[in-house]
Amino acid sequence: MKPVADRMIRAELPEYNEVGLPSQAEGEARLAKVRQEVKNFVSFGVADSTVMLPPKHVVDAVKKAMESPANVYCPHSGDPGVRKTVASFLKKFRGIDADPNSEIIVVPGTQMGIFATFLALVNPGDEVLLIDPDYSCVEPPARFADGKVIPVPLKKGTDGGYLFDYETLRSRVSKNTKLLVFSNPNNPAGILYSKQDLAAIADLANDNDFYVLADELYNRLVYDNAPHYSLTTFPGMKERTITLMGISKTESMQGFRTGFVYANKEISQRVNEVVRYAVQRASYYAQIAMDAVFQEPDSYAKERIRNHQEKRDIIVSGLNKATGIKCHKPEGTSYVFPDISGLGLSSQEFSEQLLRLAKIYTPPGHNFGRNGSGHVRICFACSNERLESSAKTIATVAPKLKK
Amino acid sequence: MKPVADRMIRAELPEYNEVGLPSQAEGEARLAKVRQEVKNFVSFGVADSTVMLPPKHVVDAVKKAMESPANVYCPHSGDPGVRKTVASFLKKFRGIDADPNSEIIVVPGTQMGIFATFLALVNPGDEVLLIDPDYSCVEPPARFADGKVIPVPLKKGTDGGYLFDYETLRSRVSKNTKLLVFSNPNNPAGILYSKQDLAAIADLANDNDFYVLADELYNRLVYDNAPHYSLTTFPGMKERTITLMGISKTESMQGFRTGFVYANKEISQRVNEVVRYAVQRASYYAQIAMDAVFQEPDSYAKERIRNHQEKRDIIVSGLNKATGIKCHKPEGTSYVFPDISGLGLSSQEFSEQLLRLAKIYTPPGHNFGRNGSGHVRICFACSNERLESSAKTIATVAPKLKK
Repeated sequence: MKPVADRMIRAELPEYNEVGLPSQAEGEARLAKVRQEVKNFVSFGVADSTVMLPPKHVVDAVKKAMESPANVYCPHSGDPGVRKTVASFLKKFRGIDADPNSEIIVVPGTQMGIFATFLALVNPGDEVLLIDPDYSCVEPPARFADGKVIPVPLKKGTDGGYLFDYETLRSRVSKNTKLLVFSNPNNPAGILYSKQDLAAIADLANDNDFYVLADELYNRLVYDNAPHYSLTTFPGMKERTITLMGISKTESMQGFRTGFVYANKEISQRVNEVVRYAVQRASYYAQIAMDAVFQEPDSYAKERIRNHQEKRDIIVSGLNKATGIKCHKPEGTSYVFPDISGLGLSSQEFSEQLLRLAKIYTPPGHNFGRNGSGHVRICFACSNERLESSAKTIATVAPKLKK
Repeated sequence: MKPVADRMIRAELPEYNEVGLPSQAEGEARLAKVRQEVKNFVSFGVADSTVMLPPKHVVDAVKKAMESPANVYCPHSGDPGVRKTVASFLKKFRGIDADPNSEIIVVPGTQMGIFATFLALVNPGDEVLLIDPDYSCVEPPARFADGKVIPVPLKKGTDGGYLFDYETLRSRVSKNTKLLVFSNPNNPAGILYSKQDLAAIADLANDNDFYVLADELYNRLVYDNAPHYSLTTFPGMKERTITLMGISKTESMQGFRTGFVYANKEISQRVNEVVRYAVQRASYYAQIAMDAVFQEPDSYAKERIRNHQEKRDIIVSGLNKATGIKCHKPEGTSYVFPDISGLGLSSQEFSEQLLRLAKIYTPPGHNFGRNGSGHVRICFACSNERLESSAKTIATVAPKLKK
């Protein structure tokens, strides 16, 4: 048999051995084995979708759409009515003036926005700057597009958290930089980029002529009334920013796989072409779910944010009672990313042992970049009871974990 | 601003000028302009989704899923229960023994299966054989993957239809052939590949070591009780065939964008990787819709096929009353692809003039390959009334169309 395409091989993540870590694949295989042995365990890998169902107004809208005549063969860029709703949402909540006809592309999940941006913009060898740690499913598609991946480590703070490090970012920029990718607030570290941070990033992008993919999926999941700024609103940035948003986080509607890309006309057109080649268009019914979400009264989202803030506070205070664990209080997202290095274990070792001893699964930090080592990620989009009891268990078990 | 990626430019379809046709993009722009002028028109471009809603058992299943706790973060390859249902469907209706754990990948529409297959298998310069005419959205992703596209023209029959031409296919095979792509039954020409045709294709693939992407989306939409054979069931072909099926045709459920890829373990794994990079996974609720479809009693599909056969007969007999038009009776699909060359017009001219004079839109045949020129495609998945009245209008207007 003739071999598979070379790009499949190149997309595979490189070995992490040089810094004493197994490869992601190797680490994941080891954890999968433990999960199989342990059988029943509590997973903090992703949101617990069994306790957060889509709200009634969304279910009703989708049901009505399934029972009503409609042109489900909408344009590749999405149903025109849905794009109009997205534009109104952007105007009302984000202060962004988007043309629904040429600047918004509805996608079957924001992952498609990441993938399409890489394929539309990155030539082989173009340098792609990835904040480290950041969303785990950015590096493989960047490599798939034959981009040269340049990690941009965040600084470690004193409270177990991370800080944006402008000087490091600046030092990684070269004339070959094509694209910077970052999530704001940062998944997994939960940090929010300040107005000053974003202004500095904007200046760097404008001065060095590179694009920025701003993954703002968690833009509404921000706590303590902190302001969230969209990079695209900074001077000169509309032309070079690709913004991603969706409905799977604040609203916990991960079952629909729908989001949108906002970018200037030229980039939108290219993203639209990739969407067309790859999937034709997002599911009409999932688009209707997004339409219902963005038409909802603000009160629903506010209530969700309040709930998530409560959950954050439960897990942060619970984890900080554990010896050897330092948990930064995240400004946004539904993750905490505690520093477990005080226990003298790697994140892989911590994850494996916690799973064995306490039947609790936490993804190791190196899944989110080499600089995430020494941390684990805990998704707190689950019941308060689970957070309370698991934090207690972790505090009890932590001293027993051994290198 | 730095330019977009070269692959975007390479993916654009080449000019068709060498055979006296505008480029697809140019032709489409001209037709879009006429559509704008005409405003209200009847479109035979795709199925009329306003008259064919998802059946009650599917709506009920999706609604129940939205209201029930579920792990919507299923594996990238799809919900395990849905994959099991797909395997049962393949066993019961197609005689295929598929391992639901390693050989089935649920995708957000079969377009994703096409795209993922190209990206997973085709290296730059690998030769990709495309039947001509065939599904219109195969060539752009083939070019996107940097494949060298080699058209394989079907023979023209005497009744306005096409015939599979083994000798032409054989002459196009070289040592660089990586992949043959074909739809069975053929979209747009409606021809069904016989057991002998498929056996010959299988021998060619085995002897010359190439893969085959068999787009069998319309495998149940076959008329007059004709048998449909899946290429993967022929000797040696399981290892080199990628089979695509979905729910958008027989069942007219185009609003969910869900289908599946069936291939051997190694190819499935690679397709799964592209799915993961591109979209993470198909929408859980859309997967539940597919599950409901494939669990339905056979009677529902049988009734749909009977309805479509009736529609086919109406449009074929109606069009054959028009001077200068020859319409082959398709053995499958929901398309007729009448030969309008007897009118002395190109398909682009016919489409534009019919739209202007009769307010009827029919996509020109060259959209489906250069060899489709002289034909137009009419999707007959719409009401019988529309088919009857439009066929009459076309018969009246045809003699008035001028070069």
